[in-house]
This record gives sequence, C-alpha cells and structure tokens, in this order.
Amino acid sequence: MSNKKILIIGGVAAGPKTAARARRLDPEAQITILEKGKYISYAGCGMPFYLAGKIHDFDHLYSTSYGVKRDPDFFKSERGVEVFTGMEAIAIDRDRKQVIARHVDTGEEKVFDYDKLVLGTGSYPITPPIENLDLKGVYRLNHLEDAQLIKQALDAGEVNDVVVIGSGFIGMEAVDAIFSPRRTVTVVEFKETLLPGILDQDMGNLLYKSLYEQGLEGRFGEKVLKLEGEDGRVARVITDKGAIDADAVILAVGVRPNVQLAQAAGLTIGETGAIVVNEYMQTSDPDIYALGDCVENTHLLTGKKVFAPMATYANRQGRVVGDNVTGGQSTFKGVLGTGVLHCLGINVARTGLGEAQARALGYEVETIRVATFDMTHYHPNSNKILLKMIADKKTRRLLGIQGIGKGEVAKRIDVAATMIYYGGTLDDLLNIDLGYSPPYNTPIDPMVHTGMALKNKLEGVAVTYTPAEVKEKLDRGDDFILLDVRTAPQFNMRHIEDPRIQQLALGELRQKLDQVPRDKEIVTVCVMGSRAYEASRILQGAGFTNVKFMEAGMEGWPYDMDEF
Amino acid sequence: MSNKKILIIGGVAAGPKTAARARRLDPEAQITILEKGKYISYAGCGMPFYLAGKIHDFDHLYSTSYGVKRDPDFFKSERGVEVFTGMEAIAIDRDRKQVIARHVDTGEEKVFDYDKLVLGTGSYPITPPIENLDLKGVYRLNHLEDAQLIKQALDAGEVNDVVVIGSGFIGMEAVDAIFSPRRTVTVVEFKETLLPGILDQDMGNLLYKSLYEQGLEGRFGEKVLKLEGEDGRVARVITDKGAIDADAVILAVGVRPNVQLAQAAGLTIGETGAIVVNEYMQTSDPDIYALGDCVENTHLLTGKKVFAPMATYANRQGRVVGDNVTGGQSTFKGVLGTGVLHCLGINVARTGLGEAQARALGYEVETIRVATFDMTHYHPNSNKILLKMIADKKTRRLLGIQGIGKGEVAKRIDVAATMIYYGGTLDDLLNIDLGYSPPYNTPIDPMVHTGMALKNKLEGVAVTYTPAEVKEKLDRGDDFILLDVRTAPQFNMRHIEDPRIQQLALGELRQKLDQVPRDKEIVTVCVMGSRAYEASRILQGAGFTNVKFMEAGMEGWPYDMDEF
Repeated sequence: MSNKKILIIGGVAAGPKTAARARRLDPEAQITILEKGKYISYAGCGMPFYLAGKIHDFDHLYSTSYGVKRDPDFFKSERGVEVFTGMEAIAIDRDRKQVIARHVDTGEEKVFDYDKLVLGTGSYPITPPIENLDLKGVYRLNHLEDAQLIKQALDAGEVNDVVVIGSGFIGMEAVDAIFSPRRTVTVVEFKETLLPGILDQDMGNLLYKSLYEQGLEGRFGEKVLKLEGEDGRVARVITDKGAIDADAVILAVGVRPNVQLAQAAGLTIGETGAIVVNEYMQTSDPDIYALGDCVENTHLLTGKKVFAPMATYANRQGRVVGDNVTGGQSTFKGVLGTGVLHCLGINVARTGLGEAQARALGYEVETIRVATFDMTHYHPNSNKILLKMIADKKTRRLLGIQGIGKGEVAKRIDVAATMIYYGGTLDDLLNIDLGYSPPYNTPIDPMVHTGMALKNKLEGVAVTYTPAEVKEKLDRGDDFILLDVRTAPQFNMRHIEDPRIQQLALGELRQKLDQVPRDKEIVTVCVMGSRAYEASRILQGAGFTNVKFMEAGMEGWPYDMDEF
Repeated sequence: MSNKKILIIGGVAAGPKTAARARRLDPEAQITILEKGKYISYAGCGMPFYLAGKIHDFDHLYSTSYGVKRDPDFFKSERGVEVFTGMEAIAIDRDRKQVIARHVDTGEEKVFDYDKLVLGTGSYPITPPIENLDLKGVYRLNHLEDAQLIKQALDAGEVNDVVVIGSGFIGMEAVDAIFSPRRTVTVVEFKETLLPGILDQDMGNLLYKSLYEQGLEGRFGEKVLKLEGEDGRVARVITDKGAIDADAVILAVGVRPNVQLAQAAGLTIGETGAIVVNEYMQTSDPDIYALGDCVENTHLLTGKKVFAPMATYANRQGRVVGDNVTGGQSTFKGVLGTGVLHCLGINVARTGLGEAQARALGYEVETIRVATFDMTHYHPNSNKILLKMIADKKTRRLLGIQGIGKGEVAKRIDVAATMIYYGGTLDDLLNIDLGYSPPYNTPIDPMVHTGMALKNKLEGVAVTYTPAEVKEKLDRGDDFILLDVRTAPQFNMRHIEDPRIQQLALGELRQKLDQVPRDKEIVTVCVMGSRAYEASRILQGAGFTNVKFMEAGMEGWPYDMDEF
C-alpha cells in the first residue's frame, strides 16, 4: 500500500485493464488515466458487430457485462480511478517524472506527476499513398467514431457498392459486418490472397473460394492508385488493373504503433518500429511501462521481435503491468500470433508459424492438409473443416496450424497453441486427452488426426501431393493418372476436368487393379483425402511403385473457381 | 510386409480401428476380426442421437463418412480384412497360438491361428441387484440392438414416464435423448448428485439446477430395490425412499470390462478388474495385445491404474496397436479422464482430478469457481459458463477443471487437458496464446481468467467462500453480513433470502462505506463474482479486516431450488 502515483496514458484497452488490476492490488495508489479521445475502455473489437446490427445499442460497446457504462464517473466510483478524456499527453519529462498534457478542445495544458508511468498509446491506421482519401464515403474502422460514421451511412442507404482496401483481420471483419445480398462488396488486396501473412496462400485461396461462392469479389495482386469522386463523394476506386465503382470505401491496410511520445522522451524503439519492453513490460526507463498496440512482442517460437497489435495481448499485458507498477514481478513472455476470425459463416483460425514464414526462417518444414468433420459425421450439426499443419522435420515439433471451414476450428487452434507453448511434438498428439462426445468432436480429434497424417507423411506411410502441386503437374502437362476413387455419382457431381482423370471407386479397387496402369505415376484423389490415402496404400501394397495421393481431396481444391 | 496372421477379437470400435491401421501398414498380413454380435464398427456413441430422432437412418450408425455401410463386405473389399460376425471367441490356446470360436446361431466351432492376437472385447453393462429386471419396458443403452428396442418403444408411444437408473455419461445421454415435454423423466442416482465421480458435488448440483428448471426430476442418495410390473410390463420403480411410476426404465449403472477370455487364458488382470497392458498395449503375453473398454489405463497425473471405458481411448489405442502388431513401437501413455456431455442444452466438460479425488490422493488442493461469459458479453451469441479449477498449492500445477453452462466449455477443457499433459502451472496461463475474437472468446479466455482468480486466491488477493461454505454459514447461524453489491433492481429479481443480507451497489460502495458495519464479518456477493471481488478489495483497502467474497456469485448458487 502506498500513495504511489500511477499515471496511465491511453484509455482504450491496455490502460483501463492496467488501472483495474493496479487498483485491486494497491487501494491507496493515485491512479490516473489520460485519454485524448472521447470514449474510454471500449470494445474496439465489437465495432463490426455494431455495424452488422447485431449489437443495437452503441453504449454496449463501452459497458460492463453487468450493464454499467464505463465512463469517467464509473472509473471514479467503482474503481477509484481518475480519468481525463479529451486530454492528450504531449511530452514526458523523465527527469521530473512528469507528463505534460493538453486538452484537445480548450488547448489548456496540465502537468501530471508520476512515480510509475504506463504507456498504452495504441496504434494508428496506416494512410496509404492513395489520392483523394478525403472524399466523402471513405471510412476506416479503428475507432468508435469510425463505426458511428459507417453505421450512419449504412442506415442512410449510402453504402451499396463497397470496396474494402486491405484483407487483414480488420478488413475481413468489415466485410463480414457489411456484407449483404443488397450490396456488392469487393476486397482489393495488394498481396496474392486473403489474409496475407495470416494464412498461407493455399489456405487463403480456399477461404476466398468459400466467400466467393457467397458473393464476395476479391481482387488480388492489385494496387489501389487513387479514388475518383463525384460531387465530393467517392464514385470509383482506380487500381493498377482497372476501375471499380464504389459509393463507399473502407481503408484497412493495417496499423502502426503510436510511439511519438515515447520516442521524443528518448525511450528505445525497436526494429519493428514499436516500443522495446522487457518481459516485465518495462521500457528502457524502468519507471515507464508500455503495453498493447504500441509495444513489440517476442515470438515464442523464434525468439524474434514482432509487431502484433492484438486486443488479447493488450488485455493480458494490462494484468502484468498492473501487477508490476504495484510492486509485483509478473511477466509476459511473448506471443504465437494466434488469430481467429468469423467471416460469412466461415471460421478461420491460425497459430504459430505459417509454412512460408517457417521456411523463410530456415526450418526444415513438412506440412499436411486434412479435410474432415468437426464432430462425428453422423451428427446433424457436423460440418467440414480443413486443417493445415506445419511441423519441423528435425525435431518433429509442431510449428503452426491453420484452419478454415463451417465447422469448429478455433478449439483446435487453441489446443495447438497450448502445445506449441510447451514445445509439443507430433509424437505427443495421440496422448493428449481431448474430450470426445458426438456433438463436440470425432473420437480422434481432427487436430490429432491431422498430426497423425503428418506423422504418416514424415514416416513415408503417406506419400502425397498438395492440391497446388497437382495443379502444377496438370498445368505443366505431366503424364500421370489422376485416379478418383469416389463412387461414380460422387465423381459426376464435381471432379477435376482433365483427360488424365480416371474414376474407380475404392470399394472396387482391390478387384480391379488390372485397370490401373503400372507404368505411369498414379495420383489418387477423393472428396476429403481419406479414401485417396487408403487407395494409395492398396496400390503401394500391390506393388505399384509410383503412387501418391492428393491431400485434403476436392475440399482442398479451389482451382475450379472461375477465377483460377 | 509379411504373411503375418493378425487376429482381432471384437468388432465394435477398437478392433476395426486396429485392423484399418494394420492394413495400411502391412498390405500382406492376414487380418481377421471375430465379432459375436450382428453389427461391426458401429458408432455406439451415436445411439442417443438416433433415439432423439436426430439421426433418422439407423444405418448411419455404421456407415463411413462417405456413406458406405461398414459391413463384412466393406471390410473385405475396401480394407482387405476378413470379418466374421456372430462368431464368439470362447478360448485362447496361447501355446498353439490359436483362438477357438463358436458361431452363436449354428453352434459350429472354428479355430483361428494367430501370430499377433488383439483383444478388443469391450465391456458389459452392470446388472444391479434389482428385482424384476426382466419386465417389459426395461432397457439398457449399450448396444445397437438396445437402441433399436428403445426407438421402437418410443415410436409406439410406450415411453411416457421414464426412470433412468444411474446418472453417469450413458444415463445422462439417455436423458438428453428421450427428454420431451410430453414425458416425465426421472433420474435415480445412488450417489449424492448428477454425474458422481465425473463432476464434484457442487458442480453436479449446479448442473442439476439447470436441468431441473427444464423439467428433469432427480432423486439422489436413493437406492432402487425392485421394479413392479402389471401384465408383465414395468409399472413402478420401488426405491428405499418410495415409489416412482414408470412405463419405461433405462438401466445405466455403469459397465465392467469383458475379461473372461483373457482371464481364462492366464493373462494378467489388474486391480481395477481390467486387463493389464504396458504402454505398447501388450498384455502379459507379448504376442497378445488388448485395448479399449477391456483394459485398464494409467492416469497421467497420478500414475495410478484406472478403468476408463471411453470411446476415444479405444480409437486412439487402435492406432497404437495397429502400429505395434505390424512391427511398430507406438505408445499410449495414459489418460486424464477428460469427458464432455451435452444434456438439454447444457454443455458439461471435465478433465484431470476432481476436488474430492485430488484431496483423497493427498494433494494440497486449492479451488476456485468462476462464472463468466464464453465470449465478449456484448456479442449476441454469448452465453454464461461456470468453471471450477483445481490446482496443487505446492507446485501450482493445474490438477483439474470442470465446466458447465449454455456457453462453450469443451474448448476450455481441451486446452486445460493439454496443459495438464505438459505439467502446466497457473503461472503459464497468461502466456499461452489463445485465439481471441468476439464470436469466440473474451479478450482473456475464461479458463485463463479462472486461473488468474485461483492465483489471486493462492496469493491472498482474493479471499473467498465457496457458495457451499456460505450456505453452511447461513445454516449454522453465523453472525455476518451478506453484502449484495448488485443494483437494487438486480437484487430484487433474485437474491438469497436471509435477514443477514444487505444490498449496496458496487458503484455506491466507496461513498457509503459508513453503511457497512466494521465489527462483523462481511461476505460480498453479486451475480457472477466479479463485482463481489471488486467490492471485497475496496473494503479490504478501506481497512475492513474480515472480508470475503462468494465465488461465482448467484450463478453458483443452487440452494434456492425447491429441492434444497
């Protein structure tokens, strides 16, 4: 207990969390939050649901779970924390341990003393070099005020042809929020697929296939050059490949850490551009802590510094800083880049390293893609999911996993993240006791099943091509047989259109081995991969020497979209 | 590759899984399955969903995910595995490496040679010492034929007043399957609460409250003595406490391992009554493997042997045995007793040790109960869950967790099971990178949040009573103030009826400290526990020396049911 002055700059997520924890641990400390905006302690992540009309009352975005608005009065009465909104910190005087702040409306300056200073200054949206961003109808989705502006436009019927620039988490959450049969929604992405850097390209392509089938338009590898307007309002998006009509544009090309204040005060800034902190969340000045979107994190697998502005880190770090500014020694060790997204009924999740990331870091990588059901296939609620697992050949350590599908993927990614935290290997998987009951799981969890498939691959029992590799072989004109082992009716519904394809149902294969040529490479294929694997083992067992199966089956095949 | 003879006794889950894996690894082995029943490779776990009408076609219970019936023809053509149904193994001749079997209809005997023998003989339902179990209308739910009988009776309108004897997983799955507003369903449990040994008593009570509110009748600590019939049909269940009208009775008092064959062959049987196997799933005869419901398992936390007949173990062990009978060296290390159940819209899950189990084993146990939302509270799909966590005070290791609620609990229990597998402690929790997005999670996952609360308790920051302890204090007549810190309208909706209760909203507490007596013990209470915790910290900070809060709030309070 003390009369310690704890001063917190930033009142969105990291700051209030720090204040709440510090208050519980030190009832006598003077805790003050300075926030330059109008709202504090708000749920930025809830904005898409407000736009989608799933949260009707704007106030819910900054209310407690028991329905009380988290405004300065609440912080005063319930938390004993003094909050100044509209108060922008403009300088830190580290020698005097003071922060100079200015009221954004009145311009009045005010000096705040501190014993411990906490920087939760957050991030700001990147402004890309696009002409005419000041046209009416151009939005961002970073602050509550942004959400209000878009909601007003939606309600006024001003949002019909929407272009979302950027397909990271915020861009795709915006898509999910505003997508409707009454609107055309187009995503323009500079990189080659959706969620670049979050999903590997093959997974991004499959996600896009699912969304495209619902009506989303994607334009990839395309750079927005300028906006064109009519009467001051946006009318067209001009890219290096053409023009897209638009009466609304949402800019979501990412964020950068807000570090001006820290930098001006001489605190160390890292190579990621964010504030450097140790595992106690202390900056280079031991009396100044920083957390949330303005700091860099350590990747738990690689040990490298990363900029990973995620709400969960801000909240978890808030607890750590709350402990430490009141005399504790809590640590935040790092991140795995776990992320999860719901978009147009499709669940997307990932953790750890992607395939491309892992290869770039020099790992000897093996991967597998498995399509399966998220619970027993006979249960009426079962849905398909597709998982891609990435492991290190040498150590057999799990490096990463990505999942998409209508079915449950978030659970599997959380389990994988836990495994990766403990350095888990493929050999642990079968022994981890995950819960099974038909409404929740398959008897062997899909993530475990995927790991078993990857083990099979590492041990030479499963010899595969990825769908991308099969596509390449087809395009290259390789001479091989694509043996589709589904039944004829299933084959007739949808199959790869190519003269090299041959249908022969798995159930007949053992009897009709003479119909399969022995002098050619055979690639088996089915709907989700399991029958193709079975068929490959039958053929290999029967002495066929050049047999592979296509991972994930037709579920993993996006190439029959018009787009490819 | 070989001409090895792999003989498998039992064709439900463990056996066929073993056969499938062995076949993929050894295309030349002669693989044979003997099954005394009519059906093979069926989804026993799916029976409740068939009864509930959620699976319309009985055949789906033994079909592949791609719609093919798993009958002997399927095993022959797709798997190259010979299956004999209606074929009961009656003796093992270990010297000659032969199994003598008899056809259940014809009585014809047949001798099968083996190089490697696999026992997947499963379990059989316990027949309790109850008179007149042979009356019409008395069912079990262990085999497909049982499910067909019940379904016929349901369809014929013969099932109106149902008594389920036993409230383990199978009993509660039966309840979920047949519950309907048109039926009265009563569960009679010899122990003190639902799911005894699976849930701790306090959690079982809370589950019962949720089900009771929907119309389920529970009778606990009550022993069924006999059934009474009319015209050969069950009419009443007579217990040591009274009679219950019933036109249908489902017996679900547990199962025992089928070990006669193994025992007669001189294989070692463990103290649990099940077959002893090593981590390669080998019995005391290295050429004989056993798996599934007939073997005992090692508990991964305690190292003790347990009988845990769960479908997921049978399936996972099948893979291990499939590896090992074809020359591999795979291991199944043990179990954590993870279980998950869906009953009348309530999710139930548990892993590791329960509080009572952990105490009985001599651990220095600390526990916490936390009520919270399964995702951001402002999301329209959010639901409440209640988690109870059990940890070892000395090592801070997580020992177990149990969860119930309308919201998502299975995910949290899977993550906890993964942590326990790796020996995780409460101090790891905040650093495990679980995915967050409003439709999936709270910024700090509920399981992590629960662990933080338990850390607070271990470190003296949170000083609590459990709801059961508060109930005891009230009943004992202790002199204390039960300070309900919700708002007056929330308080008026539902609160603990007692003269010792006082309402004072958290938001006014700091200003109205003089209304709280300093000479009495104060126990704060709210709806889910968080405001009560906050209030306890305010009071402790203001110099009140005898303050505790009630864990989990009114969400954790089952005692205002008529029953208590």
